[in-house]
Amino acid sequence: MNRRISSISIEAPQSRTRRSSYATSVSSRRNENLTRRLSALSTAEHGEAVDTATTAAEETVAEEIAEIKRYEDFTTIDWVQDAARENQRRKARRVERAGFFEREGRLGWRRKVWEAYDAGQGWIVVTLIGIAIGLNAAFLNIVTEWLSDVKLGYCTTAFYLNESFCCWASESGCPEWHRWSTFWPLNYLLYICFAGLLAFCSAHLVKSYAPYAAGSGISEIKCIIAGFVMKGFLGFWTLLIKTLAMPLSIASGLSVGKEGPSVHYAVCTGNVISRLFDKYRRNAAKTREILSACAAAGVAVAFGSPIGGVLFSLEEMSNYFPLKTMWRSYYCCLVATAVLAAMNPFRTGQLVMFTVRYDRSWHFFELPFYILLGVFGGLYGAFVMKWHLRMQAFRKRYLSQYPILETTALAVATAILCYPNMFLRIDMTESMEILFLECEGGHDYDELCDRQNRWGIVFTLLCATLLRTLLVILSYGCKVPAGIFVPSMAIGASFGRMVGIVVQALYEAFPNAAFFAACEPDVPCITPGTYAFLGAGAALSGIMHITVSVVVIMFELTGALTYILPSMIVVGVTKAVADQCGKGGIADRMIWFNGFPFLDNKEEHTFGVSVSHTMTAKPLALPARGLTVGDLERILSETKYQGFPVVEDPETNTLLGYIGCTELRYALERAKRHQIVNANARCFFVPQDVPGTAVTPSTAMPAVSFDDMAETAGAMSVDFSKFVDPTPLAVHPRLPLETVMELFKKLGPRVILVEYHGRLTGLVTVKDCLKYQFQVEAHENPKDDSALKAGQDKLWHVIRRVAYWIVGTVGTYSGGRLRLSEGMRPPSSAELEGYGGRAEDERGAHDGELELEDRGHTPR
Amino acid sequence: MNRRISSISIEAPQSRTRRSSYATSVSSRRNENLTRRLSALSTAEHGEAVDTATTAAEETVAEEIAEIKRYEDFTTIDWVQDAARENQRRKARRVERAGFFEREGRLGWRRKVWEAYDAGQGWIVVTLIGIAIGLNAAFLNIVTEWLSDVKLGYCTTAFYLNESFCCWASESGCPEWHRWSTFWPLNYLLYICFAGLLAFCSAHLVKSYAPYAAGSGISEIKCIIAGFVMKGFLGFWTLLIKTLAMPLSIASGLSVGKEGPSVHYAVCTGNVISRLFDKYRRNAAKTREILSACAAAGVAVAFGSPIGGVLFSLEEMSNYFPLKTMWRSYYCCLVATAVLAAMNPFRTGQLVMFTVRYDRSWHFFELPFYILLGVFGGLYGAFVMKWHLRMQAFRKRYLSQYPILETTALAVATAILCYPNMFLRIDMTESMEILFLECEGGHDYDELCDRQNRWGIVFTLLCATLLRTLLVILSYGCKVPAGIFVPSMAIGASFGRMVGIVVQALYEAFPNAAFFAACEPDVPCITPGTYAFLGAGAALSGIMHITVSVVVIMFELTGALTYILPSMIVVGVTKAVADQCGKGGIADRMIWFNGFPFLDNKEEHTFGVSVSHTMTAKPLALPARGLTVGDLERILSETKYQGFPVVEDPETNTLLGYIGCTELRYALERAKRHQIVNANARCFFVPQDVPGTAVTPSTAMPAVSFDDMAETAGAMSVDFSKFVDPTPLAVHPRLPLETVMELFKKLGPRVILVEYHGRLTGLVTVKDCLKYQFQVEAHENPKDDSALKAGQDKLWHVIRRVAYWIVGTVGTYSGGRLRLSEGMRPPSSAELEGYGGRAEDERGAHDGELELEDRGHTPR
Repeated sequence: MNRRISSISIEAPQSRTRRSSYATSVSSRRNENLTRRLSALSTAEHGEAVDTATTAAEETVAEEIAEIKRYEDFTTIDWVQDAARENQRRKARRVERAGFFEREGRLGWRRKVWEAYDAGQGWIVVTLIGIAIGLNAAFLNIVTEWLSDVKLGYCTTAFYLNESFCCWASESGCPEWHRWSTFWPLNYLLYICFAGLLAFCSAHLVKSYAPYAAGSGISEIKCIIAGFVMKGFLGFWTLLIKTLAMPLSIASGLSVGKEGPSVHYAVCTGNVISRLFDKYRRNAAKTREILSACAAAGVAVAFGSPIGGVLFSLEEMSNYFPLKTMWRSYYCCLVATAVLAAMNPFRTGQLVMFTVRYDRSWHFFELPFYILLGVFGGLYGAFVMKWHLRMQAFRKRYLSQYPILETTALAVATAILCYPNMFLRIDMTESMEILFLECEGGHDYDELCDRQNRWGIVFTLLCATLLRTLLVILSYGCKVPAGIFVPSMAIGASFGRMVGIVVQALYEAFPNAAFFAACEPDVPCITPGTYAFLGAGAALSGIMHITVSVVVIMFELTGALTYILPSMIVVGVTKAVADQCGKGGIADRMIWFNGFPFLDNKEEHTFGVSVSHTMTAKPLALPARGLTVGDLERILSETKYQGFPVVEDPETNTLLGYIGCTELRYALERAKRHQIVNANARCFFVPQDVPGTAVTPSTAMPAVSFDDMAETAGAMSVDFSKFVDPTPLAVHPRLPLETVMELFKKLGPRVILVEYHGRLTGLVTVKDCLKYQFQVEAHENPKDDSALKAGQDKLWHVIRRVAYWIVGTVGTYSGGRLRLSEGMRPPSSAELEGYGGRAEDERGAHDGELELEDRGHTPR
Repeated sequence: MNRRISSISIEAPQSRTRRSSYATSVSSRRNENLTRRLSALSTAEHGEAVDTATTAAEETVAEEIAEIKRYEDFTTIDWVQDAARENQRRKARRVERAGFFEREGRLGWRRKVWEAYDAGQGWIVVTLIGIAIGLNAAFLNIVTEWLSDVKLGYCTTAFYLNESFCCWASESGCPEWHRWSTFWPLNYLLYICFAGLLAFCSAHLVKSYAPYAAGSGISEIKCIIAGFVMKGFLGFWTLLIKTLAMPLSIASGLSVGKEGPSVHYAVCTGNVISRLFDKYRRNAAKTREILSACAAAGVAVAFGSPIGGVLFSLEEMSNYFPLKTMWRSYYCCLVATAVLAAMNPFRTGQLVMFTVRYDRSWHFFELPFYILLGVFGGLYGAFVMKWHLRMQAFRKRYLSQYPILETTALAVATAILCYPNMFLRIDMTESMEILFLECEGGHDYDELCDRQNRWGIVFTLLCATLLRTLLVILSYGCKVPAGIFVPSMAIGASFGRMVGIVVQALYEAFPNAAFFAACEPDVPCITPGTYAFLGAGAALSGIMHITVSVVVIMFELTGALTYILPSMIVVGVTKAVADQCGKGGIADRMIWFNGFPFLDNKEEHTFGVSVSHTMTAKPLALPARGLTVGDLERILSETKYQGFPVVEDPETNTLLGYIGCTELRYALERAKRHQIVNANARCFFVPQDVPGTAVTPSTAMPAVSFDDMAETAGAMSVDFSKFVDPTPLAVHPRLPLETVMELFKKLGPRVILVEYHGRLTGLVTVKDCLKYQFQVEAHENPKDDSALKAGQDKLWHVIRRVAYWIVGTVGTYSGGRLRLSEGMRPPSSAELEGYGGRAEDERGAHDGELELEDRGHTPR
């Protein structure tokens, strides 16, 4: 991370000088041609009635531009333009429709049906998505349960049943459910083999078909919802592979959860379905609204917590969450959860995997222990994040060529370590349920409530906590669908239960102490299960840095109404501790780590400088008239910017508008397609036929379509004026940088121009702001990680030697039949290409060095 | 409402012409003086390093301006400037502090303590506020319960106990609790008298001491949180009177709830406490953050629903809710609820007034009935809002002089109507609890579960629903603290229970129908209590147009986990129906009705015009140099604008900045206080000593404080440049109006200037946008309410005659001893003044004709 910052700070001045020198050379060459002034138009544009000129022909052009506006990969959406375009589209539709139905001669039911369909399209889309997510969730729940239990045994009545379905209605075990063998070492071995096999399948699927399906996906989705474009990340292949690989990876026993992947497949579903509808294929900003709703539904079905899902989307996923999106999310969660409830995958009528009911309330004297749990949650989060990021750096540097081997090895190691511990052996959800339960009422798993063996249990729980933490750090980033919610909760639950048992022991040792005075004499006073419950919430909050959603999710997961105040206290303490340990949850950290251009809404900065500090001064601008097509083509091929400001002439630099690269290229291509365009043909970026006097706006901007113009004017001039945005956002150079960042965060333009008294002086992008922010941060906290790197090198050396030894030994003993060494050979070029993904559809850069420079948005 | 729209559309052109004609006269007079150009400064301002000039002296000026920046009444905050000022302040503090501690010679604990205090100030404030709100809520709960029961009887053991405390641990009644008499007509009469007396006291308190304490306050608080300034609305007197009058008005039996007032007193508490702290006294924008948190805490303590409170604040109160505010709200709710729990006002250990536990789950065949409940909720909301607004119009026109009499009469009428109905007689909360309960388990209030009397109960519930709806329409706007949450829920509950009983009857009539196939044979299948629960949620959602918060509140109120999906369905249907019936909940409608300048975040508009359509074209601008002090004073006295753009000269109109009226007045006064200022002294709005060559910024803007300048330059010139904002937000005249409205909503500037190629062409305020919006709406839905007015006139005539007859009759029979006629006499001038409020502190314009024109912000 540090390396990235320094590289930026070095590169920034270079790119700036390079750019400005080019600008000078181009502009000086054009000087002689450009002297005419556009003073006539200014009167017309002063604004009295310009926009009434939105005639039908202009709408055609607008539609045309919208059509060609392909959102390029690794760029960001311009929200402002998108919104403006959507407004135009709506108005055009209204006009067009009115015309259509008047021609038709009656304003009857056809129009009404059509309008209702158009208005309700959004709801239809959300309903379909909700249903699809619900069905998928039900399928995944069933498959995951079965695969998890297959590691331990099988059902004699029907092989496809898991233990609880096999032994329906009987409390603990039944003769129909067979363990694989009665000899425990064989069970152990089979457990390990199954784990390795499942992990191998999962990793192989991901590697071969959809590299984007690896990991949790939450941080990428956060960026996508904020406007970033990553093609294929939400595509059909990713959806399919994530759905198939997720049950495998969870069942393999790796310390990964299903919530992150749930969000990912839900958002994929949303993307795939909404692309079928015209309204959403056109407008990327509107699609983001749907994606927010899908993210909510993903959490809702994963936890069976519809309101929790909405709040999660609000708190974590969306940097801007208007009430309309909330309402969409609400509805999407409702549909998805209702479908899941109707499918009833657990056959218990419950939405959630388990329900806990606490009969007793809490006491005020328990507060110190609750605070302890909160502190644990905060520290746990900080610790895991720190080491996970180091692990990711290590993985990126050394392991990226061996994704399948790494995952399989990890699964085998996990199985070896976890089988002996009774809380680690079983599914994490199941172990949480056991830990949450009250001791009273006949629930007892492996003497958890046994008072004789109390310290043994405490030790086992402590081991479980520590081991699982280690495994989470190692497993979360590996190349299979992997979430961190449930593992964190499981860790919190085991720690919490441990604390609870200790408190219970304390109380039983000193039942008459003043501290425990609030306890009633003959009923159980301390409920260790509630500590596990609170611990789970604390760990979840600590890792994700979310508050309200955690409380609601925990609440919906268990329905423990009386514990809402303790939950809030624990989560509050966690949040306070976590904020002291560093900012941002694991998703935010991964965003910084990967260098996505994402301005975090949660942060507040005080730079105390003006925007002129970060802007690209004197950006390359196109003069309004005088450039030849040849010049333009050279500029397009030589530079890698995403757009150019348009100025009156390089002398005065009066800002006239902004044109995107995509539009420019498209316009050029189209002009060439229709006729032979001379390389010396003049380019115009403002309407040509401006008479010397003040004109009415509708004649100043004649409503000729592109084709008319090209035909009439011949091949000696090309008019780009229809593709220029005449009203880009422009600010004063002395405006505080903080205000400009607010503009980016809240309005979401792709670029903000800097204008001083009508003259262009600079250009700012989100990337410029982020660069400055990183510089300031690097300056404030200089870091040196060369020691760390040396350590990692040593570690890699050791790992390689161990691996070669294992390969050698296994090879010797198995006579080459075991293919454990697959992937350990130097990777072939075909394999590397395979990881590069499915041709153009899926780019394999998922966790390559995605530096800001590689994918910046304007200039690219 | 219609009247307002039309009046605006008439006035708008007038004010525009008036303004622009004045601008021409002033600017033409100055033409000769202003020819110098500011070309030299432009180089300096191009932005390389201008802002490093933020020296200590400049900070002093900034502090000075912040000090004088009094937020004037009925104006809006400029969020952009406030944020910029806060950033400056922070930076200055950092510098100053560093200096201080370096002088001190040690960087030890003193600095750390000071920094910790400065950083933690916000948390200290929120903690204090939370504690105060919790204590207040506990007090109010106890007092309200007692006062409500006093109407029915008294406790012989101790007069200050209510029925449930008096009969602690006994299920239904006890000998210690006496009804007032055994003769029911006397009880009836006493009930009526108590109701009238309590209402009279409440109304008298409000009228005499704090008119702002009337009503719910939610719509005003919404505007205040959005940046509107209403002095006294959140003052100490309002807090005190609201706290005292609220239990009285609720106990009087009026169909009003405590939730709106709870929010109001909570926000008052927040305002009063935060004013004690320097950080918040200075910065109105930061205070808004605290106020959002307080609004959340108000709902949290009213419903015992901390998360519901946070979500309510998010969904309803705040138009912009960053995560930081969410976290503040969360903490404030937590503290307030914890204090309330520790006070334990109900002595049940419960936060809420009642807890319901449903043992049975729901069936899918019940969905049609749930949908029916949802539809009812939506229609109820639309109906009540429509008639309530009419009632408010009537009240404004005819009843505003008789607030006390109106309230008392209403309370008496309510008592007369409600006593005979067993669900209306008791407290609304109590009646809800009864309606929510399951029939099994021995709960039975007045044979509610009696199967013989089923149709009688249905009839009683129907009466209760209709009567209460009528009473809510009449009572919600009257001049006592009055909320609409609980009354709405009570109405929904009675309707829902009715539906539930009908469904139960259906089931019992056809137990073997295919429709009821999901019912298990021998256990009760339909739980009417759950219908009441869902109906309450539907009505609440219908009236407020909130979704997620309703589900969470209902959930936290009852802990009915299994009913979360039905709740969501019901609320979803309600929302869909309500959206068809008109936009905005009752709080939004009241905002429109009162004409507050509030841009609703929830709405999306498609105007399809540019900002030039709504802007004030050619606003009165001050030339940068050449105006005399005399001119300036005349402009200030003759115009009522809140600020003026500063231009280079009226000829070129090059925009240089913006100066607020407050700053201008202050600067003038200060100049005069220090020395005699000649009326012919020149005013400068840009730094004076600009040499002809390019200069470094620090000399271009010399760091002289106001005093230095005044002394050296003598009385012949006054420099206002320090008070000019050099970087006001400026947009292109052809920018779509929607984008400008987004800017207002999301960044919150007070004014946006319109600039074309560096030249000022216009000025837009929120008011201009709202005016345009109203015009469009009025044009689309033209309305004629003359018939309505005639009807109201007739109604008023009838009421007056009835009133005079009653007064005459009572006067005759009582011989003048009964003072029922108080307030019915023609109001004296003293009384009107009294209603005008507490001198300057509280303006009595609470529901006077608050037209936009009366209180617009820029220009005033």
